[in-house]
Amino acid sequence: MGDTNIGENVGTGTKVLNIAVAGLGRMGKRHVSILLGRVLRANVVAVCSVAPHEVERARKNPDYIDFNVSVYDNYENMLDHPGLQAVWISTSTDVHAVQTIKAIEKGLHVLCEKPLSINLDEVSAAIQAAESRPDLKVMAGFSRRFDASYRDAHKKVMDKAIGEPFLIRSNTCDLLDDTGFFVQYAKRNGGIFVDCTIHDIDLALWFLGNPKPKSCFAVGTLRHHPELAESQDVDNGVAVVEFYGGKIGYFYASRTQSHGHDVCTEVTGTQGKVMVNVIPRVNNVVLADKMGMRHEVQPEYWQRFEEAFVTEANEFVDSVLYDKPVPVPLDAGFMVMKIGRALQESLTMGRVVKFDEQGNQMTD
Amino acid sequence: MGDTNIGENVGTGTKVLNIAVAGLGRMGKRHVSILLGRVLRANVVAVCSVAPHEVERARKNPDYIDFNVSVYDNYENMLDHPGLQAVWISTSTDVHAVQTIKAIEKGLHVLCEKPLSINLDEVSAAIQAAESRPDLKVMAGFSRRFDASYRDAHKKVMDKAIGEPFLIRSNTCDLLDDTGFFVQYAKRNGGIFVDCTIHDIDLALWFLGNPKPKSCFAVGTLRHHPELAESQDVDNGVAVVEFYGGKIGYFYASRTQSHGHDVCTEVTGTQGKVMVNVIPRVNNVVLADKMGMRHEVQPEYWQRFEEAFVTEANEFVDSVLYDKPVPVPLDAGFMVMKIGRALQESLTMGRVVKFDEQGNQMTD
Amino acid sequence: MGDTNIGENVGTGTKVLNIAVAGLGRMGKRHVSILLGRVLRANVVAVCSVAPHEVERARKNPDYIDFNVSVYDNYENMLDHPGLQAVWISTSTDVHAVQTIKAIEKGLHVLCEKPLSINLDEVSAAIQAAESRPDLKVMAGFSRRFDASYRDAHKKVMDKAIGEPFLIRSNTCDLLDDTGFFVQYAKRNGGIFVDCTIHDIDLALWFLGNPKPKSCFAVGTLRHHPELAESQDVDNGVAVVEFYGGKIGYFYASRTQSHGHDVCTEVTGTQGKVMVNVIPRVNNVVLADKMGMRHEVQPEYWQRFEEAFVTEANEFVDSVLYDKPVPVPLDAGFMVMKIGRALQESLTMGRVVKFDEQGNQMTD
Amino acid sequence: MGDTNIGENVGTGTKVLNIAVAGLGRMGKRHVSILLGRVLRANVVAVCSVAPHEVERARKNPDYIDFNVSVYDNYENMLDHPGLQAVWISTSTDVHAVQTIKAIEKGLHVLCEKPLSINLDEVSAAIQAAESRPDLKVMAGFSRRFDASYRDAHKKVMDKAIGEPFLIRSNTCDLLDDTGFFVQYAKRNGGIFVDCTIHDIDLALWFLGNPKPKSCFAVGTLRHHPELAESQDVDNGVAVVEFYGGKIGYFYASRTQSHGHDVCTEVTGTQGKVMVNVIPRVNNVVLADKMGMRHEVQPEYWQRFEEAFVTEANEFVDSVLYDKPVPVPLDAGFMVMKIGRALQESLTMGRVVKFDEQGNQMTD
Repeated sequence: MGDTNIGENVGTGTKVLNIAVAGLGRMGKRHVSILLGRVLRANVVAVCSVAPHEVERARKNPDYIDFNVSVYDNYENMLDHPGLQAVWISTSTDVHAVQTIKAIEKGLHVLCEKPLSINLDEVSAAIQAAESRPDLKVMAGFSRRFDASYRDAHKKVMDKAIGEPFLIRSNTCDLLDDTGFFVQYAKRNGGIFVDCTIHDIDLALWFLGNPKPKSCFAVGTLRHHPELAESQDVDNGVAVVEFYGGKIGYFYASRTQSHGHDVCTEVTGTQGKVMVNVIPRVNNVVLADKMGMRHEVQPEYWQRFEEAFVTEANEFVDSVLYDKPVPVPLDAGFMVMKIGRALQESLTMGRVVKFDEQGNQMTD
Repeated sequence: MGDTNIGENVGTGTKVLNIAVAGLGRMGKRHVSILLGRVLRANVVAVCSVAPHEVERARKNPDYIDFNVSVYDNYENMLDHPGLQAVWISTSTDVHAVQTIKAIEKGLHVLCEKPLSINLDEVSAAIQAAESRPDLKVMAGFSRRFDASYRDAHKKVMDKAIGEPFLIRSNTCDLLDDTGFFVQYAKRNGGIFVDCTIHDIDLALWFLGNPKPKSCFAVGTLRHHPELAESQDVDNGVAVVEFYGGKIGYFYASRTQSHGHDVCTEVTGTQGKVMVNVIPRVNNVVLADKMGMRHEVQPEYWQRFEEAFVTEANEFVDSVLYDKPVPVPLDAGFMVMKIGRALQESLTMGRVVKFDEQGNQMTD
Repeated sequence: MGDTNIGENVGTGTKVLNIAVAGLGRMGKRHVSILLGRVLRANVVAVCSVAPHEVERARKNPDYIDFNVSVYDNYENMLDHPGLQAVWISTSTDVHAVQTIKAIEKGLHVLCEKPLSINLDEVSAAIQAAESRPDLKVMAGFSRRFDASYRDAHKKVMDKAIGEPFLIRSNTCDLLDDTGFFVQYAKRNGGIFVDCTIHDIDLALWFLGNPKPKSCFAVGTLRHHPELAESQDVDNGVAVVEFYGGKIGYFYASRTQSHGHDVCTEVTGTQGKVMVNVIPRVNNVVLADKMGMRHEVQPEYWQRFEEAFVTEANEFVDSVLYDKPVPVPLDAGFMVMKIGRALQESLTMGRVVKFDEQGNQMTD
Repeated sequence: MGDTNIGENVGTGTKVLNIAVAGLGRMGKRHVSILLGRVLRANVVAVCSVAPHEVERARKNPDYIDFNVSVYDNYENMLDHPGLQAVWISTSTDVHAVQTIKAIEKGLHVLCEKPLSINLDEVSAAIQAAESRPDLKVMAGFSRRFDASYRDAHKKVMDKAIGEPFLIRSNTCDLLDDTGFFVQYAKRNGGIFVDCTIHDIDLALWFLGNPKPKSCFAVGTLRHHPELAESQDVDNGVAVVEFYGGKIGYFYASRTQSHGHDVCTEVTGTQGKVMVNVIPRVNNVVLADKMGMRHEVQPEYWQRFEEAFVTEANEFVDSVLYDKPVPVPLDAGFMVMKIGRALQESLTMGRVVKFDEQGNQMTD
């Protein structure tokens, strides 16, 4: 950081990328910090939020002040910030697609957090917008693909370390949130299989070579958040996805773990199995005392995936500055969302949801 | 990163710290990268090396060029760089102390990598220089103290999680280096207990509450690098330090591990034990196949301690900008070095080296 | 072992139990060894097999000779062995039920290996026979319930260590058998969910408090044993069982693991999770070398559950000698088998199989 | 177990071995149970103790009654039990050697628990007695050599899995005993390095190929049992043994662990490292809850080594019945005891104890 003549570079795209972050919620703030402090070639020029208290807090943030980050209370205005080249969309899911499209229309590069939308039509529209501007980098923010362990595991699988991969087990389990924050948030997240399992489905497609789904089944239960019943959701759910070609994915999602944020994945192949984070550990400390030996677990996805977000940010900036393909194209999320929604439907209906060999859901 | 009017801040010390890095060897380059890309409030203005090929390579480094890092071939000249506020000394051990003193004389803040010197008189001189300028931040670079796991373990010990700590086991074991680089480097490192075990001794003092040494004993063997015999050194050594107050430290140092860089520590107290990295893992991937289940290990200290170096850099910069005490004062290394040298002496002489209760080595 | 006047005890039931073992296949032989050498109060008086080569080998077995074990080639004849008090049935599944009934009719105590039968009518008949003779101990051989780790986990769950248990994941995964033995054996085992998952279903009922099934769904794939297609079976399968009361079990069974026999179980409750054997280890040796760190895995269920079989044998003998309830009543297997068969049906039909609240399968 | 005409075999040595156990303390009772119930070809005919309460309790033991175990209150009388063939000596250390010699003089096979004696002259005398009767099996009870994990590790080392082994770290750490039993016991155990570390020294010699000691150094501290100061002992001690040939062993012994019985060993070679029980686990259960993830540890050596004792008993019986060499000859303990006593001397004197190349301690 620190560059005495950065002004010259604005707009050239060769030295640094002028980027804005939309959304200053829990994750938005973190992305700003990463872009400010851990991405050499990102220049955060603006942020925005529609929440007045977030705007106010941002205006007092000494880092934002010292490093000239303009704070907007309106997304559209922010898009007009002079010299802006790219937008990182970290707002609530319901505006992801429309904000992505608006940014594209302004000629800006975009990274949009997952999911693009829980409405498949909106997903299609955003993908179409991106396709209409091949000169722009438009990227989907599936953070696990940037995690060093998942990458190592994926490389091993691609290198045939386990033969032919055909089965994946993957969990996305959150620490129980007693504060009420989660239930408030849950109202518009599309359901547990869309909000959580979407990551596991993405991993399934990534590790198994993008197979087409054949059937989906899901069950669930309510253990701590009975309010979720209103929106036909559950706080613990198990899902099975059968793919064409004899491949299988099965998933567990939970909002109510006692021990921490527990995200693990196992990929089984004809010659072996690769496991990621089956025993989660916050660090490498073990305490031995009268209770035996114990270690702590990450409380949240942030502690587990912080480095992945840094890598994601650096790779997005690099893809723009050096005109490289984005690591996760926007349309990566389309099939993921179709499967997530089918699981949510199976959960509600209590029956198997089937797909044809082209990946289109069949009406029963 | 990215600040269009950073020029205004130079010299004020309020927004960013103008820093230079001395030494562009393996670690020096890494520190420059960290300071450039991962320390928000550091502004790397200059670097230097006495090795022509390092200077040449630095002058072509696109990051150095784009972010205006001046490259010097002379330490003294670099100290005169306009606006310079602090120096990070990452040169070879033999010039650490003298460079530290020179920087202090120029009124610059200093972080000096460990060890300050293998000559105790030089260590004293540098400490004295630092004490003469209490307005300057002068810090010793004991990187382990910045590692998240060691900090968590230390906090647990301070919080009495293991009762009264009285015994520490600690290892510093390097991957076997077949390239010849190590043997070249070893010639001026002061011996295995000074070069490697110094970290473990530092941990011992930190965890056990700075006890005074009472007796030291060490043995060693040569397994892969017979050339070390010339300098009366070994490639594997075991050391025991008895402290006054019934405390004990014991250490294993190796240059010849097959499986990776293996640094682990166990602190035993009256009510429990805290263990750091007893099973080293490069990430959280496990591969299961015909050989069983296996995970990989970090090849070098860099993969193990990269984040610690980032934390160290940020905390040094913060200590200067916000006038906070340095996390590791320069004199932290004095007793560490005395013990390290006593172990080296014990190894050579084959007898116990003793200290009085003030921590002064006794002549036998 | 060793008792100079054991003859006096025959028939009194107070000192030792005269027991016979039916079946001298892989497991039968092992049960004889356990009963001979590791159950103080068992006196093996007879064994039988219908396989001539097994009979011949048994007649030459020095332990059988030295300890007076009579070898029969006919089950019915063996039942008439003088002084016989109990039978351990370790034959092939298709004769379990009928042999159990015959032994009961002779007034003998019985331990019958799982499963009692894959035919639910036979299961019922055997249970009825047992109920008609409350003076006899008739026990189902679900070996996992005798494993020290499963017992510890179960005790923790009963002691509310994880709050209210509501979800279980359990695997039964065998090492790939390249010898052809398995495929031969598979022909009459009832399918993967009846043969393997039956153990996991038993654990589910045991840990979750015997909930009634609500719906079952299973998918599978053939990866190494295409011959299984003939019997509509798979070599890898995933199953989900939804229970009434918001409880869920999900299972993975495999015949084709590369790394060993991998049986693990996780039980999740409202306040925590208990995990059994999530990282399988054959012993506590770890080898560190250029490949990293690795440990080996049990090749077969025998290495994993040998001690459980010893405990099972001791407890069966004790239940007879001291008139204590059998640890696993014969009817424990009834609901387990109903669920196993429903999963097999779901696998074949590709749809959900449903149950009413009394646990009766509903016709779709 | 169970043999209707076992009387015929008495004295022939072909079918079963008539054995007596001397000592009915904590371990003696356990050895009787093992020999009775888990060694097919052992026939326990007698036991003895000089403690009246132990004799009384033994006479009421239903297993001893039912299986005709005669209970003596005098060792010499027990040796005259009709048909006796072998003795298992599990009395207190101070009578081990003399009882061994007496049994040999009676023409009995002997297994004597470690250590043979803390008096080196007694050790020599017993070894000499054994050598004078090559027709008798006389074995030293170093239980770790029968542990499946240590055997697997040893086999790996012999198979060159770690290249040339040259360094061993080994711990013998007991759970803190608050009952006062330990301090009472400690009075005549010879000191921590003789009582505990003796096992680790035995492992060192076994794994490193019986190298000769060159120098010994030990330090210690008193943390929970100040009464040990009277006998110049400590409750936590660290020891280093340098062997001729560039080999090193270092050891930690403790009486005061909070988390359980923790015995671990690491053997480092030129191509790798083999680790035994570095993370001790009582079983394979892990509990995840608000505290993180934890497992329990064995409370005592019994839970850790029970199976090893069973193997030891079976192999001793086999060595007699089938005239095979004993797995651990009596003289295996001689050098072990010399090193253990040298460490104890170093602890007391505060200096290095040296040996010549023949393994004879040098006077300083």
